[in-house]
Amino acid sequence: MEAPFYSRLALIGIGLIGSSIALAARASGAVGEIAIHTRSPSTLKRAEELGLGDAYFATAAEAVKGADCVIVCVPVGACAAVAAEIGPHLAPGAVVSDVGSVKAAVVKAMAPHLPAGIHFIPGHPIAGTEYSGPDAGFATLFENRWCVLTPGEDVDPAAVARFVAFWRTLGANVETMSAEHHDLVLAITSHLPHLIAYNIVGTASDLEAGIRSEVLKFSASGFRDFTRIAASDPTMWRDIFLANKDAVLEMLGRFNEDLAMLTRAIRTGDGDTLFELFTRTRAIRRSIVAIGQDTAAPDFGRRGTEKPEG
Amino acid sequence: MEAPFYSRLALIGIGLIGSSIALAARASGAVGEIAIHTRSPSTLKRAEELGLGDAYFATAAEAVKGADCVIVCVPVGACAAVAAEIGPHLAPGAVVSDVGSVKAAVVKAMAPHLPAGIHFIPGHPIAGTEYSGPDAGFATLFENRWCVLTPGEDVDPAAVARFVAFWRTLGANVETMSAEHHDLVLAITSHLPHLIAYNIVGTASDLEAGIRSEVLKFSASGFRDFTRIAASDPTMWRDIFLANKDAVLEMLGRFNEDLAMLTRAIRTGDGDTLFELFTRTRAIRRSIVAIGQDTAAPDFGRRGTEKPEG
Ligand SMILES: NC(=O)c1ccc[n+]([C@@H]2O[C@H](COP(=O)([O-])OP(=O)(O)OC[C@H]3O[C@@H](n4cnc5c(N)ncnc54)[C@H](OP(=O)(O)O)[C@@H]3O)[C@@H](O)[C@H]2O)c1
Ligand SMILES: NC(=O)c1ccc[n+]([C@@H]2O[C@H](COP(=O)([O-])OP(=O)(O)OC[C@H]3O[C@@H](n4cnc5c(N)ncnc54)[C@H](OP(=O)(O)O)[C@@H]3O)[C@@H](O)[C@H]2O)c1
Repeated sequence: MEAPFYSRLALIGIGLIGSSIALAARASGAVGEIAIHTRSPSTLKRAEELGLGDAYFATAAEAVKGADCVIVCVPVGACAAVAAEIGPHLAPGAVVSDVGSVKAAVVKAMAPHLPAGIHFIPGHPIAGTEYSGPDAGFATLFENRWCVLTPGEDVDPAAVARFVAFWRTLGANVETMSAEHHDLVLAITSHLPHLIAYNIVGTASDLEAGIRSEVLKFSASGFRDFTRIAASDPTMWRDIFLANKDAVLEMLGRFNEDLAMLTRAIRTGDGDTLFELFTRTRAIRRSIVAIGQDTAAPDFGRRGTEKPEG
Repeated sequence: MEAPFYSRLALIGIGLIGSSIALAARASGAVGEIAIHTRSPSTLKRAEELGLGDAYFATAAEAVKGADCVIVCVPVGACAAVAAEIGPHLAPGAVVSDVGSVKAAVVKAMAPHLPAGIHFIPGHPIAGTEYSGPDAGFATLFENRWCVLTPGEDVDPAAVARFVAFWRTLGANVETMSAEHHDLVLAITSHLPHLIAYNIVGTASDLEAGIRSEVLKFSASGFRDFTRIAASDPTMWRDIFLANKDAVLEMLGRFNEDLAMLTRAIRTGDGDTLFELFTRTRAIRRSIVAIGQDTAAPDFGRRGTEKPEG
């Protein structure tokens, strides 16, 4: 299979992810033409100024006409409405995908609107930055990052293989799994960490004024890492927690059980339990470094060799 | 006031922090001679090989003789025993300090062993790396980092001023406050974040094998940042939680209250509450960037412009 994989790619939504797909697809020659629609006229105009596509449309319905691949790049909560709008206008045999951070809820929201003969292959590129909008995108965003695809069991394997090849050409490592499994894995690796970070930063912001200013000042000692995570886009994350409620609540339940035990160890002065846990968690860090998911040098390049400490 | 501030500095403990003080004091000319003691003969030998000091002693009692400044650089839980050993051998008028991450408990542990005529000025340089031992130290560790000093109210201001000048010469920004205030501020900025990170990594390590391997694989989406924090030294952190129990439990209580509210918002689908919190926490991040405690570019230099995402 060789590029171009699709003669016409339609992107619905052209923020950070949509514009990065446009740039990466263009740079790699993964597609022929690129058609773009986004909700607001000003964003559409900006996309055109940036030269992100070949054709720009005021409605999603027009944008998908004649496209053999459609990727919906809007917040999770907006996917249902987009699917309803594009459904009747999709070309037979087209691939329809998305980039949402939650999968089961998106499948449930979009699938009913998609006609027979469409290859629905939901996706989630695990790559992002702190920034939003069409100016934030760049062609190398997906390089060496994971992209998880969650096609249903009845989806044509040839269509899936082609879409996998497309994402690989954009630089991503592709993995296929069920939507439910994706949501459970992401609940612990991404959603719970974000929830906890939002929560702890919220707790700090409610402190008495006298302590609060000092918290900012001495934030380098661990807190700062949480503020970075807790600065993520509010709309995107609200949608994620609402859409992945069950898996998040499940992981939160386990987290709370463990925290209750840890709290008790501190209260009763049980140093052995603390030491045992802290040794176990250290080993997990080593596994992550070993499989190449991070460098051993903590915070490398951020502030010398500094890391949060006590 | 000009360097050298002390004619003889004694360091008890020569791990990451002790060796960094030795190197920084030497490089800046902040002291005349440096005397070193550490618990194990092998570490002492290594310190000598590295040329960290001018004289090396098998006992703490010998090392402090004739020193006009003594800094104890051992884990918080070991400070009491060290103070008991050195107490009878301290030179009159000497400054005695430490580097422990908890202050009230260290003061309580050390003070009873220190004779009258000694200037006891507890300290906490808020700087560290992932590494331990005398090989881990470097002269610039304290540059532009905070060092908090917590002298009692009856300590000679001139002695404090001299010790402040010493730390500034090592590159640190110095701030003075009460031991209790330090412990409360660090409980929220450092101890609670570490506890939460240890806990979430522990929760993940207890997952069913099928999910666990995927958690490592997809760790870039937020979890990875927690594993870095949860890789901190187990002995040091066990001691911190035991020594700062009250302040940690206080902050943990607030954290749990907030988490209960957040959990409920997710369970009931209350998107407005989530959105409001996520917007508020974003503002805190901006404050930290504004006061220069971090750069706007997240993870700058670590993996391009990547940051944890959904
Ligand atoms: N950012 C990340 O880190 C990241 C990573 C992986 C996956 N994702 C997923 O990617 C999706 C988009 O994220 P992004 O970072 O590209 O967002 P973004 O930069 O904020 O762009 C959002 C795009 O969606 C459009 N949009 C917003 N709300 C809409 C609505 N209610 N109805 C229709 N269109 C709407 C915007 O249109 P206008 O500007 O024209 O209003 C814009 O084109 C989200 O589902 C997110 O879960 C994000
Ligand atoms: N690391 C950080 O991020 C950081 C930051 C700020 C403050 N601190 C504080 O600095 C202190 C030392 O940390 P570090 O990172 O320098 O540790 P380190 O590199 O592990 O060195 C510890 C030193 O303490 C000695 N020691 C260990 N256990 C002892 C015991 N039970 N009795 C007597 N001596 C003992 C070791 O002696 P031997 O090697 O000879 O056995 C070594 O000299 C801790 O109190 C910590 O709270 C640490």
